[in-house]
Amino acid sequence: MPNTYSYCGRIIKGVVLDITGVLKESGPNGGTAINGSIDAINRLYESGLQFRFCTNETTVTRHHLVNQLRRLGFTIEEDKVFSPIPAVCQILKERNLRPHLLVHKDSLPDFKDVDKNDPNCVVIGDATNEFSYDNLNKAFRCLMEIEQPVLFSLGSGRYYQEDGELVLDVGPYMKALEYATDVKAEVVGKPSLSFFTAVLKDMNVLPNEAVMVGDDIVSDIGGAQACGLAGVLVRTGKFRSRDESHPDVKPDDIVDNLAQFVDKLLQHSL
Amino acid sequence: MPNTYSYCGRIIKGVVLDITGVLKESGPNGGTAINGSIDAINRLYESGLQFRFCTNETTVTRHHLVNQLRRLGFTIEEDKVFSPIPAVCQILKERNLRPHLLVHKDSLPDFKDVDKNDPNCVVIGDATNEFSYDNLNKAFRCLMEIEQPVLFSLGSGRYYQEDGELVLDVGPYMKALEYATDVKAEVVGKPSLSFFTAVLKDMNVLPNEAVMVGDDIVSDIGGAQACGLAGVLVRTGKFRSRDESHPDVKPDDIVDNLAQFVDKLLQHSL
Repeated sequence: MPNTYSYCGRIIKGVVLDITGVLKESGPNGGTAINGSIDAINRLYESGLQFRFCTNETTVTRHHLVNQLRRLGFTIEEDKVFSPIPAVCQILKERNLRPHLLVHKDSLPDFKDVDKNDPNCVVIGDATNEFSYDNLNKAFRCLMEIEQPVLFSLGSGRYYQEDGELVLDVGPYMKALEYATDVKAEVVGKPSLSFFTAVLKDMNVLPNEAVMVGDDIVSDIGGAQACGLAGVLVRTGKFRSRDESHPDVKPDDIVDNLAQFVDKLLQHSL
Repeated sequence: MPNTYSYCGRIIKGVVLDITGVLKESGPNGGTAINGSIDAINRLYESGLQFRFCTNETTVTRHHLVNQLRRLGFTIEEDKVFSPIPAVCQILKERNLRPHLLVHKDSLPDFKDVDKNDPNCVVIGDATNEFSYDNLNKAFRCLMEIEQPVLFSLGSGRYYQEDGELVLDVGPYMKALEYATDVKAEVVGKPSLSFFTAVLKDMNVLPNEAVMVGDDIVSDIGGAQACGLAGVLVRTGKFRSRDESHPDVKPDDIVDNLAQFVDKLLQHSL
């Protein structure tokens, strides 16, 4: 029987953790571990609580991401990591869809078992430099030629920080293709309900028994709260002080970092 | 006293003509003249009617565009051509704005007199291959760094046909930057009211005394009608048969081409 804890006025049985901005800061060679996060994860393992990692990262394979985190010192298993690519591959299989891919080249191995001949849908991820005019035109024309066009977007983030600079995420390109083609994208990943639901189902906990910890006030906190989870904002990663007074999203708690979250969560065992 | 004609139940004193898709089809080396259009323009000159050319073309300078049309056989003066770049340059001057430019390199000479140091706004045009991930990030970061960000989009078209293939226009990139930055773009060019107003003012005619001829059901016809002009759709250029039953826009008339429009317009002199 897993342990439970009292936090934010709830009985918490499951924890969902964003990766980039919570466990590590982004940067070259997988980034750097955030102070106290490695130990915080180890304490979660010892707590007996269920927890999963939930990321919209699509610039690398899940396997590579887990290896990066291990090299930084984290204890982490691949089957605890939920990311949009395995989720979309499952959807493609269920719906007999063959994608035209506009994704990061380093993520392509995760699509190796997917039939990509004669595409009848488009999948876009955080393709970074692959977002050329030419490649966006190819995805656009593919959608225009399909009789019943389907567009999957691996997340809908607006931007993130990379090597100290803001860079565009997949969301703006999703909006560009939506406008050009009049096709509404299906978002796979945070903040979609089906993505959060899959994570909760894997832990066998209900939304109101779970808490999401993230650095993205809209996608992590707002998204989790909309699905019934508590949402806790960390003051690391892409956090900016104006997020604390966001007009629409009020976090259930705001903490300095993951270590402080774990301190507070584990204070009240039930 | 210029002549007037009766058409579409109106007294017409001024004509506004789109260029690409009405005078010429797009293609390499400036494209090809549409059958009957050269003669139709000459008949408009002889009619005594006022007329202007109104284009969202921003991949070349206005001077170059006029030279292309002359080489195709058209009689056309540069001061009769209204395009977004001279319009935005005027706005930048009036509002003391210094742009970061994301535009086609062949259009840059039209910005030569504009102060581009220490930018306090962003101007995007139909930049085609210049719409790289890197260049879109630069425009994005510029908007994020400006205290009161202003984004000008030279038109808002979704796509157009080039060498037989559909290609993305500036509109999708406008939507991408709007989503990423939460800044609403100011559209300069068709279908903006200020753009049509400048054209009408130059002819000294009122909106209900004017007719716009174009191949874009939304931007040309819908845009002109929203500003009080009659809108006539030609079955050339990017016209598709489904445009005749567009859910929102009902043209005042639909003609096979510019020559047929001029035939019908000049039938009833007042």
